[in-house]
Amino acid sequence: MMKDSLEIRLAEIAEMVKGELKGDPDKLVSGAAPFEKAGDQEITYAGDAKFLKRIQASGAGAIIVPKRFEAEALNLIGVGNPQVAFAKVLQHFYPPLKRRYGLNSPCHIGKDFSCGKEASLAPFVAIGDNVAIGDRVRLHPHVAIGHGVILGDDVEIHPNATVGDRCRIGNRVIIHAGTVIGSDGFGFAPDGEVYHKIPHTGIVQIDDDVEIGAGNTIDRATFGKTWIQKGVKTDNLVHIAHNVIVGENTVIVAQAGISGSVTIGKHVILAGQTAVAGHLEIGDNVIVGARGGVSKSLPKGEVVSGAPEMPHKTWLRVQRIMPRLPELKKKIEELEKRLNRIENRKSKRSKAKGSDI
Amino acid sequence: MMKDSLEIRLAEIAEMVKGELKGDPDKLVSGAAPFEKAGDQEITYAGDAKFLKRIQASGAGAIIVPKRFEAEALNLIGVGNPQVAFAKVLQHFYPPLKRRYGLNSPCHIGKDFSCGKEASLAPFVAIGDNVAIGDRVRLHPHVAIGHGVILGDDVEIHPNATVGDRCRIGNRVIIHAGTVIGSDGFGFAPDGEVYHKIPHTGIVQIDDDVEIGAGNTIDRATFGKTWIQKGVKTDNLVHIAHNVIVGENTVIVAQAGISGSVTIGKHVILAGQTAVAGHLEIGDNVIVGARGGVSKSLPKGEVVSGAPEMPHKTWLRVQRIMPRLPELKKKIEELEKRLNRIENRKSKRSKAKGSDI
Amino acid sequence: MMKDSLEIRLAEIAEMVKGELKGDPDKLVSGAAPFEKAGDQEITYAGDAKFLKRIQASGAGAIIVPKRFEAEALNLIGVGNPQVAFAKVLQHFYPPLKRRYGLNSPCHIGKDFSCGKEASLAPFVAIGDNVAIGDRVRLHPHVAIGHGVILGDDVEIHPNATVGDRCRIGNRVIIHAGTVIGSDGFGFAPDGEVYHKIPHTGIVQIDDDVEIGAGNTIDRATFGKTWIQKGVKTDNLVHIAHNVIVGENTVIVAQAGISGSVTIGKHVILAGQTAVAGHLEIGDNVIVGARGGVSKSLPKGEVVSGAPEMPHKTWLRVQRIMPRLPELKKKIEELEKRLNRIENRKSKRSKAKGSDI
Repeated sequence: MMKDSLEIRLAEIAEMVKGELKGDPDKLVSGAAPFEKAGDQEITYAGDAKFLKRIQASGAGAIIVPKRFEAEALNLIGVGNPQVAFAKVLQHFYPPLKRRYGLNSPCHIGKDFSCGKEASLAPFVAIGDNVAIGDRVRLHPHVAIGHGVILGDDVEIHPNATVGDRCRIGNRVIIHAGTVIGSDGFGFAPDGEVYHKIPHTGIVQIDDDVEIGAGNTIDRATFGKTWIQKGVKTDNLVHIAHNVIVGENTVIVAQAGISGSVTIGKHVILAGQTAVAGHLEIGDNVIVGARGGVSKSLPKGEVVSGAPEMPHKTWLRVQRIMPRLPELKKKIEELEKRLNRIENRKSKRSKAKGSDI
Repeated sequence: MMKDSLEIRLAEIAEMVKGELKGDPDKLVSGAAPFEKAGDQEITYAGDAKFLKRIQASGAGAIIVPKRFEAEALNLIGVGNPQVAFAKVLQHFYPPLKRRYGLNSPCHIGKDFSCGKEASLAPFVAIGDNVAIGDRVRLHPHVAIGHGVILGDDVEIHPNATVGDRCRIGNRVIIHAGTVIGSDGFGFAPDGEVYHKIPHTGIVQIDDDVEIGAGNTIDRATFGKTWIQKGVKTDNLVHIAHNVIVGENTVIVAQAGISGSVTIGKHVILAGQTAVAGHLEIGDNVIVGARGGVSKSLPKGEVVSGAPEMPHKTWLRVQRIMPRLPELKKKIEELEKRLNRIENRKSKRSKAKGSDI
Repeated sequence: MMKDSLEIRLAEIAEMVKGELKGDPDKLVSGAAPFEKAGDQEITYAGDAKFLKRIQASGAGAIIVPKRFEAEALNLIGVGNPQVAFAKVLQHFYPPLKRRYGLNSPCHIGKDFSCGKEASLAPFVAIGDNVAIGDRVRLHPHVAIGHGVILGDDVEIHPNATVGDRCRIGNRVIIHAGTVIGSDGFGFAPDGEVYHKIPHTGIVQIDDDVEIGAGNTIDRATFGKTWIQKGVKTDNLVHIAHNVIVGENTVIVAQAGISGSVTIGKHVILAGQTAVAGHLEIGDNVIVGARGGVSKSLPKGEVVSGAPEMPHKTWLRVQRIMPRLPELKKKIEELEKRLNRIENRKSKRSKAKGSDI
């Protein structure tokens, strides 16, 4: 399934992932593959019990496993976090494509361009005036870079993506295809039935090690900056409005939308199709379940679901009750009838006997 | 309303749609139009009772109707499926634009390009190395085709769309503007608060006769392929994650999102803004209602709605109860008061008379 | 925070916004800034009590305030609508970028191009045949304009956006990056399990003063036109299907989706992630709350939320009850037990005493 790659000795892989090798240090592998499919020339990983108990069935040449896991007659590399180790191995076998184009493609480059070493500018890249880019930047076809933009080292921007005027992109940032960084925020001053455009004078700043998915839209600030901090990862079709701040290592899953001036903490997870209403503060380590609709600020560590949001545990119970609402309604009607019957008897009896009281 | 087109005799249209003509075989029509607007030079269709009962009011030169339908003094073409027949007539009058550009536009074409007959490469198309495209392929402006991509015959890709490295596109596939095929899947290995990118070594494969809407994002697989099978149709702004398989003739409506490693059967309908959670299996012919949130695998033929999903009929009842929840809550409180009253009386009576039991 | 700009006397600003100046007419300001950040060289605004009561704390050189508001020792400009006045001041200090490119960029321009005065065609713009554009049109890099398109005066289209064949765009329209105008509608004629494409012969017409956000998809009509009327504003990632009509000054917030053949009135607000089902009519001034799912036509002036929609006030009550459903269910079960107990006693008593009745 995988193309041939650089052969490497298991001893070297063990060193690369800081793991402990049990098995043949001179065994060569030439690729990586998933557990079920890995063959004798390939390395795979088994991260949890589901795979570990089937480990003797694997045809892999070597398997990355949790530290202290033992299995006879297999080449194992024990590590603290097998998935992370496997990600590193994959990065070895399938490195990002290096420089393919130099500076001689049919590109447009504006005035006062400052360019680091080993840039790869693909055909039809358009770069505005006063742009500075770092070392080893790779811009794919039809990337549009506005005026006054700054890109750090090792930035990769995929085809048909746009980075608007004056935006700042850190080091090792990846922006996937079709994404728009720095569109105007959605701000209008209502005047009777008509709306006047509020110019958006700010920028978008994206810090180091951020990866932005395909088809995202990240608006520039009215004033100041919309700010995506270090290590943030967004999935596809995510919308981030003007003046939002997304804290370090926060993960935003596909089709989520964040309204204007929201501040999101560090290491937050917003699951797919979630929404956050405007001007809220979401604390560190908050988790919002799929399609959650956040209507209030959330203190750090909250785990919520539903729209509007509620504690995730409550939501689990609520969602089990939802399909039983017709049944509950019927039950209430039945209880009412039974009560009516009791009260009627009582009232007849009362009439017969006089008041109870 | 419609531009003039090729005049055609009704006898020829009847043959084209394999219908039975009642009326003048030599009547000429030069276009097609909707029921209310069609004039004497135009053909329209009446597919159901709503239109058939008003058929004498139509000003159309000819009307495609269900087999066996009769109406005096009109030119009718009877067929099994009037809408399908009308679609074919529309394809006659409004054929897709043919080759407009050859190979001499200002394009970038990489090394080892294999090109079928009659390709139309619009200006600023960028094609990577080792690409092979079939006959009559039409690439619109700013389409970016990665390295090692294969496109079948009669593929049409609209402006500003991207097809990533090594993806494979079948015959007669249409990809609308701004769409991204082959972005990296959203996969990261968590390591404390930091995430390590898992390289996505797989591809996207799109089979024959698929139509992908505008602004879609379809991620490449971690290993292997994300696979869109024959005849699938997606609307706009649809997100399909890594390793998803979408079965033949499945329809995915606008803004739906499908999480990683989901397998969807044949002839499924996912309505607008639906979501499917990761790793699920959706059986053939399943229908998910608008904004359904699918949290469990579904056997074939299920019709569900709601989030999380429930049988569509249950959902219809649940959604009627939802706005009445305040009323139900009040009712419960009222029942409780009435019960309290009864129990109080009882307990007073008991105190007065001693225990009932 | 703001770049230096054209210095201007307060007397001139007062005239520009038709306001009443209280303070020094010769005071110069050189920029605009938000309330908290404005310095002595800058103007800001205080639109409501929240800011007005802190007005003495502002460091701004001048403040736009509501008419009749008074505060000592400050330069104030009183107006009817401070936010609108501030928007105008911002437009003065941060005017849209003017013509930067002429007609000599590396563009593709088709046959029979009609071009107004002072057009700015950025590099790699692709324009089809028979296109007419008005005065001062600015097309950013990689904009694709189809054949037979008409653009009015002062149109600005941002990078990587697409306008399909024959679409018509009015004056002063802004289209943000990555947006697709005129993709085919999602219309297929089902024939057993297979779908036949229904050609979409219509167009998209966008009237004057419309602003379309980034990453939108607006489909062309099957016949006739999809029609976005004067003054409409859409946020990012909005989907508008074939044959939709959006009335004047309607606002559509991010990630909303409108199904085919919907007619929306004037001055409507569709909040974020809302959806409107097909063929509905939404009256003037309707407001649909965030993630509302509109399943029925709505008369003018309705304010709804929820999915399916209900009066917003009902929704507020429903959403407060939702997290309490487990509690309500428990309460019902408890009431039932209590009723059982009463009925049991009663029945025992009845048995003991003979029937009550």
